[in-house]
Amino acid sequence: MSSHPESGFPCPVAQVADLLGDVWIPRLLRDAMFGVRRYEDFHRLQGIGRSTLTDRLQKLVAAGILETHLYQDNPPRKEYLLTERGRELFGVVAIMKSWGERWLEGVEDLVEFRHEKCGQIVQARTVCSCCGEDLRLADIDFQLGPGFPAELAEREDLQVRFPGSRTAAAEQA
Amino acid sequence: MSSHPESGFPCPVAQVADLLGDVWIPRLLRDAMFGVRRYEDFHRLQGIGRSTLTDRLQKLVAAGILETHLYQDNPPRKEYLLTERGRELFGVVAIMKSWGERWLEGVEDLVEFRHEKCGQIVQARTVCSCCGEDLRLADIDFQLGPGFPAELAEREDLQVRFPGSRTAAAEQA
Repeated sequence: MSSHPESGFPCPVAQVADLLGDVWIPRLLRDAMFGVRRYEDFHRLQGIGRSTLTDRLQKLVAAGILETHLYQDNPPRKEYLLTERGRELFGVVAIMKSWGERWLEGVEDLVEFRHEKCGQIVQARTVCSCCGEDLRLADIDFQLGPGFPAELAEREDLQVRFPGSRTAAAEQA
Repeated sequence: MSSHPESGFPCPVAQVADLLGDVWIPRLLRDAMFGVRRYEDFHRLQGIGRSTLTDRLQKLVAAGILETHLYQDNPPRKEYLLTERGRELFGVVAIMKSWGERWLEGVEDLVEFRHEKCGQIVQARTVCSCCGEDLRLADIDFQLGPGFPAELAEREDLQVRFPGSRTAAAEQA
């Protein structure tokens, strides 16, 4: 997951991209969220090769997204369950669905989310954790946070991403 | 983008996974959202090889996420701007950031979102489009929608994902 060091720039988006940056992993996550647990069911539903499926399930377990659970002793058989960390990725998958249904063709009204809290067929929305308004790119001012390494903040190339942050970083240093 | 037909199961999440299913594309999107526009700046910031960068920028243009704009005539020089479709992917990237900061190590407080609407440093939240509550996997009942192909709904393997949907699909058919 850290094979793309990207010139030493640490980033949560980049790390999630390393995790999800595969055509199969988001499909497996989606199916796990639908309730698929067993190897043979993942295999049957996905049309994925066995070696690829084994590799991706192992990656998801290693990343703490899925965990194995023995459901039969003799012969031993395990199933794959979402961890809390994995269940919280539902936000990412649900927003991928919303965006896809809005912007891609031929994928509307295939699968619906009925939200048990309100009983309605709903979509996921991305909102501000503070004011609850829709979170739009145009309304965001990106700032280097207190955890940003000062030596990286002074790098000239970062000024393209964070104009005006040189001063702030220099003040912090 | 359709090289993984997944046994004919149409799915917006799968299509977005085909688009974002790459370690570089989410990083390029992130940088475009930070305001990076020019080939040389993408190249400098990413530590990405030129042939890979050229390929991924072309993919993003082909997918309608970025568009090129001539900013200099002689010699001709183009820059890459996010389209509306691309700007709306901010929801996906922002939720990836929130999840990463919650669940991964060493990536907190690096970059902050100041939301101009409320003036606060905020996070992205995924909520229900109808009731505004947090959208959690445990509260979702997945249902086949009216656009789901009836012939696929009758496939036995789909019963693992949508138990009880056979009747609904059969009623529709």
